[in-house]
Amino acid sequence: MEIIENGSITSPRGFSASGIACGIKAQAPDLALVFSETAASTAGLFTRNKLCAAPIQLSQQHIVGGIARAVLINSGNANACTGDRGLQDARRMAQQLAEIANIPVEQTLIASTGVIGHFLPMDKIEPGIEKAVQQLNAKGGLQAARAIMTTDTRPKSAAIECTIDGKRCRIGAMAKGSGMIHPRLATLIAVFTTDCAIESGLLQQALRNSADKSFNTLTVDGETSTNDCLFFLANGHCGNEPIKTQNADFAVFQSALDKLAVMLARETARDGEGATKLITVTIREAATAKEADRAARAVANSLLVKTAIFGRDPNWGRVISALGASEVSLEPEKIRISFAGISVAVQGRAIDYDTQAMKQALEEAEIEIEASLGAGSADARVYTCDLSYDYIKINADYHT
Amino acid sequence: MEIIENGSITSPRGFSASGIACGIKAQAPDLALVFSETAASTAGLFTRNKLCAAPIQLSQQHIVGGIARAVLINSGNANACTGDRGLQDARRMAQQLAEIANIPVEQTLIASTGVIGHFLPMDKIEPGIEKAVQQLNAKGGLQAARAIMTTDTRPKSAAIECTIDGKRCRIGAMAKGSGMIHPRLATLIAVFTTDCAIESGLLQQALRNSADKSFNTLTVDGETSTNDCLFFLANGHCGNEPIKTQNADFAVFQSALDKLAVMLARETARDGEGATKLITVTIREAATAKEADRAARAVANSLLVKTAIFGRDPNWGRVISALGASEVSLEPEKIRISFAGISVAVQGRAIDYDTQAMKQALEEAEIEIEASLGAGSADARVYTCDLSYDYIKINADYHT
Repeated sequence: MEIIENGSITSPRGFSASGIACGIKAQAPDLALVFSETAASTAGLFTRNKLCAAPIQLSQQHIVGGIARAVLINSGNANACTGDRGLQDARRMAQQLAEIANIPVEQTLIASTGVIGHFLPMDKIEPGIEKAVQQLNAKGGLQAARAIMTTDTRPKSAAIECTIDGKRCRIGAMAKGSGMIHPRLATLIAVFTTDCAIESGLLQQALRNSADKSFNTLTVDGETSTNDCLFFLANGHCGNEPIKTQNADFAVFQSALDKLAVMLARETARDGEGATKLITVTIREAATAKEADRAARAVANSLLVKTAIFGRDPNWGRVISALGASEVSLEPEKIRISFAGISVAVQGRAIDYDTQAMKQALEEAEIEIEASLGAGSADARVYTCDLSYDYIKINADYHT
Repeated sequence: MEIIENGSITSPRGFSASGIACGIKAQAPDLALVFSETAASTAGLFTRNKLCAAPIQLSQQHIVGGIARAVLINSGNANACTGDRGLQDARRMAQQLAEIANIPVEQTLIASTGVIGHFLPMDKIEPGIEKAVQQLNAKGGLQAARAIMTTDTRPKSAAIECTIDGKRCRIGAMAKGSGMIHPRLATLIAVFTTDCAIESGLLQQALRNSADKSFNTLTVDGETSTNDCLFFLANGHCGNEPIKTQNADFAVFQSALDKLAVMLARETARDGEGATKLITVTIREAATAKEADRAARAVANSLLVKTAIFGRDPNWGRVISALGASEVSLEPEKIRISFAGISVAVQGRAIDYDTQAMKQALEEAEIEIEASLGAGSADARVYTCDLSYDYIKINADYHT
């Protein structure tokens, strides 16, 4: 299993992509298209926000068939809270893509990201779709990754190769953050592609498994968006015997997908709005897996913990306070906490540590916070980022 | 019923107070004492954080007796996560206060606020208690309010007068915020005094009722501290027939207390860390009271909503997204949202509004966000503040 350098959604065979500027945004690419040469098995995960956007509602219908040819994503406008007209606009996007690319409309998937409550500028999107289809190319993965960016500072794109049934199989992915990130079940917007042949039910299962270890353990600001979704297309071009059961091939596929998804989730946390650091929160010795997860999210979502890390302060008091307020079982006298591998509290109390080593460690781009609760044997890990002036700037200046 | 100008915990008869600097903090008052001339009925509410601090544990024991003479509070050090030694230190504080002031130790209440995980400097606190007792005076309410401040920018102090049993009865209060504010049941640190005679069980009930309408509807940053507590002392010096049932006098008392508590809660939200604005979030037409409360807290705790208000942007998309993610019953097509009384969305969609009037309204010091869910008839109101650069500054710079 190996990471492909400069990999993307077009690393797997039989996929092309494009990313163009159609004018929703003033100056930047805002329309991405991912295309499979042949019908692909498909899977998807969607936001649990009750007010899910029009394109989400449409894609949820289309994905039921288990087959897709193309994913079309615009940035700059979420087409959320736009009522019947929003749903009509999403349908029109799908219909036009189907006509121009000559594929069945029910094999299209649509997503949107950006400001909520505004109608899509369909007069710009319609010629945009034509341009995006024209510009489809086998090296377009990175262009597509750029076109789905919102407040991301860099595109998130990667690919991995593994051997399945003796064939070199590839999985590619792109994702966009970087605020409103606190997924449950679904996540931000991400597209996965693979040339592996795999039945759509198993593809769905693999996607869900990986998301639980990656995107679903990610939080930037505790906000779950109206537009989160994650798509996966598998076109079988690598020529393997299709995976139809949870056999050894499935295990290899799952393992490669996990690795890729965690890579992308970490990149998304690292590029969280205003982030200067990636923070990994690991909880150990929780009573149950659910409590481990709740405790980890409580620490990761604590504004006081996030600002402390921005301030390079190993403030374990804020960690322990977040744990205490998280309503999980814990034994105050058994709690141990470390920052960057340096133990700062044991038995729920301060201990001496090498402050010089800590100072250096807190300058690193990645900080690990680890807390053991002494209540059981369940673990959980959550990714987040620090909270800086720039989060405020980005979100106070981002006007409707 | 009327608000007393420059009122404080020493506005009711028979109470004295002091606020002195004993050296826990470098340069500021850090020890507050509230004293009743005679034994007072007492009530209290405490944090639900499982890792509650040593002074909280001690005061929970003392309050069981229903009678108190004095409340001693230090700022600058929370005496939390300090194990057995922390509990011994809290006991010593109580013991010394009892000896110096010549009162029973079980009639003392103790609280601490400040950094977590450090031992109290008992060598400074012991002479401090002596000084605080010496400086007790009938006009010391504001000094005490100053001495409990942490990141508060101003002391929070008020009093109200009402007529009970033909007597002019007063209730005074002080509180401190201003971060780690997200109480459930208990709250920050606040002390209430009254010269009304009222049985301690009813005092507890009145306090809980008022807290549910005031401090428990307050959130600055979603953090519940290890040291939250709220004390109430009633010494009967106004000479009324003691309130022993939920009679008309009780109703008057409750009503005055509600008014005072809401005043202080609003002041605490307004002075939230880095706050430039007080935000009131009102939810209407929720399916149940619990869901109304959950929805209101979801909006009030949304970083994106709070930064939008800091940016003077009526970003209802962020409000609706927070509502959708809050797991309450709602009808997307029935949602109505207003900012500062100006309707911005109906039937879950944008409507035109007077942008000039909105611009002006968002410059005010108080902003009301109102959302109707169309799912029932339950209401809830929560107080919070905007999220500014200064929240980051205060909390990134506040080092352990």
